[in-house]
Amino acid sequence: MIKPLADRIALKLIPSEEKTASGIVLPDSAKEKPQKGEVVAVGSGRVLENGTRMPSEVKVGDIVLFSKYSGMEHNINGEKVLILAERDLLAILD
Amino acid sequence: MIKPLADRIALKLIPSEEKTASGIVLPDSAKEKPQKGEVVAVGSGRVLENGTRMPSEVKVGDIVLFSKYSGMEHNINGEKVLILAERDLLAILD
Amino acid sequence: MIKPLADRIALKLIPSEEKTASGIVLPDSAKEKPQKGEVVAVGSGRVLENGTRMPSEVKVGDIVLFSKYSGMEHNINGEKVLILAERDLLAILD
Amino acid sequence: MIKPLADRIALKLIPSEEKTASGIVLPDSAKEKPQKGEVVAVGSGRVLENGTRMPSEVKVGDIVLFSKYSGMEHNINGEKVLILAERDLLAILD
Amino acid sequence: MIKPLADRIALKLIPSEEKTASGIVLPDSAKEKPQKGEVVAVGSGRVLENGTRMPSEVKVGDIVLFSKYSGMEHNINGEKVLILAERDLLAILD
Amino acid sequence: MIKPLADRIALKLIPSEEKTASGIVLPDSAKEKPQKGEVVAVGSGRVLENGTRMPSEVKVGDIVLFSKYSGMEHNINGEKVLILAERDLLAILD
Amino acid sequence: MIKPLADRIALKLIPSEEKTASGIVLPDSAKEKPQKGEVVAVGSGRVLENGTRMPSEVKVGDIVLFSKYSGMEHNINGEKVLILAERDLLAILD
Repeated sequence: MIKPLADRIALKLIPSEEKTASGIVLPDSAKEKPQKGEVVAVGSGRVLENGTRMPSEVKVGDIVLFSKYSGMEHNINGEKVLILAERDLLAILD
Repeated sequence: MIKPLADRIALKLIPSEEKTASGIVLPDSAKEKPQKGEVVAVGSGRVLENGTRMPSEVKVGDIVLFSKYSGMEHNINGEKVLILAERDLLAILD
Repeated sequence: MIKPLADRIALKLIPSEEKTASGIVLPDSAKEKPQKGEVVAVGSGRVLENGTRMPSEVKVGDIVLFSKYSGMEHNINGEKVLILAERDLLAILD
Repeated sequence: MIKPLADRIALKLIPSEEKTASGIVLPDSAKEKPQKGEVVAVGSGRVLENGTRMPSEVKVGDIVLFSKYSGMEHNINGEKVLILAERDLLAILD
Repeated sequence: MIKPLADRIALKLIPSEEKTASGIVLPDSAKEKPQKGEVVAVGSGRVLENGTRMPSEVKVGDIVLFSKYSGMEHNINGEKVLILAERDLLAILD
Repeated sequence: MIKPLADRIALKLIPSEEKTASGIVLPDSAKEKPQKGEVVAVGSGRVLENGTRMPSEVKVGDIVLFSKYSGMEHNINGEKVLILAERDLLAILD
Repeated sequence: MIKPLADRIALKLIPSEEKTASGIVLPDSAKEKPQKGEVVAVGSGRVLENGTRMPSEVKVGDIVLFSKYSGMEHNINGEKVLILAERDLLAILD
């Protein structure tokens, strides 16, 4: 088990599909593309200057988009887990 | 569906027209040009140091101007969605 | 119509005259020169950490000086509008 | 007339004399030298995070020292005025 | 004995195993890998702007993940101890 | 007379002696060396975010150490005065 | 005597021994090594935004570890004293 600290979130990576519904691979645009992951553990939240913690907006099981070059990978029992700061998460997909 | 986190906003890009009313394409000035988009989803707002959230000034359906190199593109069902921070939005057009 | 967001201000550019009263063009000094504009729209104001907004010091119709390389140009009905942050405005001329 | 915004100050430059009382021009030291100016207009003051403004320590007519490379020059009726932030002023001379 | 100051944490390094359960060494991904350590001492906590200290989320004996290039090593009686800021800790493993 | 603004301090430089008590000039270490000065004028203090000013810890006549490359020199009646921010002062010598 | 200002601490350097108990010099690791010193004087503490001072965690006589490249050396009566900010101290050794 992994328990992220402060505003950290642990994710299991979801491989991205660079294809449209019709199966055609699209050429990349100049824009940076985010990646998908499933939340596996959530930290206790960012410490505010008044000493309280701001709880995370995401929960275990959420599918989230995050910025490609953020976070650090760790192996837990042979499985890759990415740990990143909540501010590097962009959106929840549902 | 996409649910942006914190101060993030999701936009559908609106292609820009680099022409005047008379249809003449104008030479570019040295100034950076913003781009247009339609708001498709709005985050819960930026966290202030007192622990409250500042609600966004924009709402779904607003046509907004934003800084050209900001945000990240994501494909949802083959449609491009741009996710950026509200501070990268410049103005609402009406 | 354009409605700037937060601390953004929209300006119509006023071409600068690089001449003295007697009509002689002066050589440039090493110092950066600001530019002139007329305020056409004003945002709702900067968000303070206590969640209130600080109203702008400028109003529609004010002639203002601003730092040359700040802001982004946008065409509205063939007219150029510059959108910049209020902190890039230097002074009101009257 | 010019009305500086926020923590901006408008100055009329006072040419510096690089000589001692006995009239001998001194070689420059390695240290940066500040410049002299007379305050011609004072802004409404810096906005604090509690929403109040901090009034300036200088007033119109004060002779001040300021950091050489700060601020922007503007011509008003053929006269040069330098606009800079109050934090770039170093001291009042009396 | 070592008593870390403020938000510092002292760790004993735990050598990482770059192998899966089946004993096969995996090729490295492009992502930065964190390292493992055991907490040996905990500081009094980060000072908040209201003058109180935020106690650490970790305690002596916790196994933690931390960012590879953070902290400084010190020898205490021939044993290596790494001292780093709590914000460089990513997660507790249990 | 000079009246420093905000957190500025005005100093008269005291030439440093790079010798031990026995008069032997020591070779320089790799470390940056601070310089000595006598306080000749003190500003009204740094503005805190609550709008009050923090009075300086030094007073006129104090001999202080300061970081070598900080501040700006000004000539007042042929005398060199160094103006720097209080945070660039390291210690009082007595 | 030396009286450090604000969050400054004055230290007497303690030469480091790069050897194990058995007297063997160890090869350096890639990690930055901190240095040891004895506290000889302590400043009045960091100013918080509410105008109070945060007293230091260290006291005169404490043996502390600090980051190698921090601080400035000063000679007092032929003795070297290092002046650094309290945040550059890592831990107390006892």
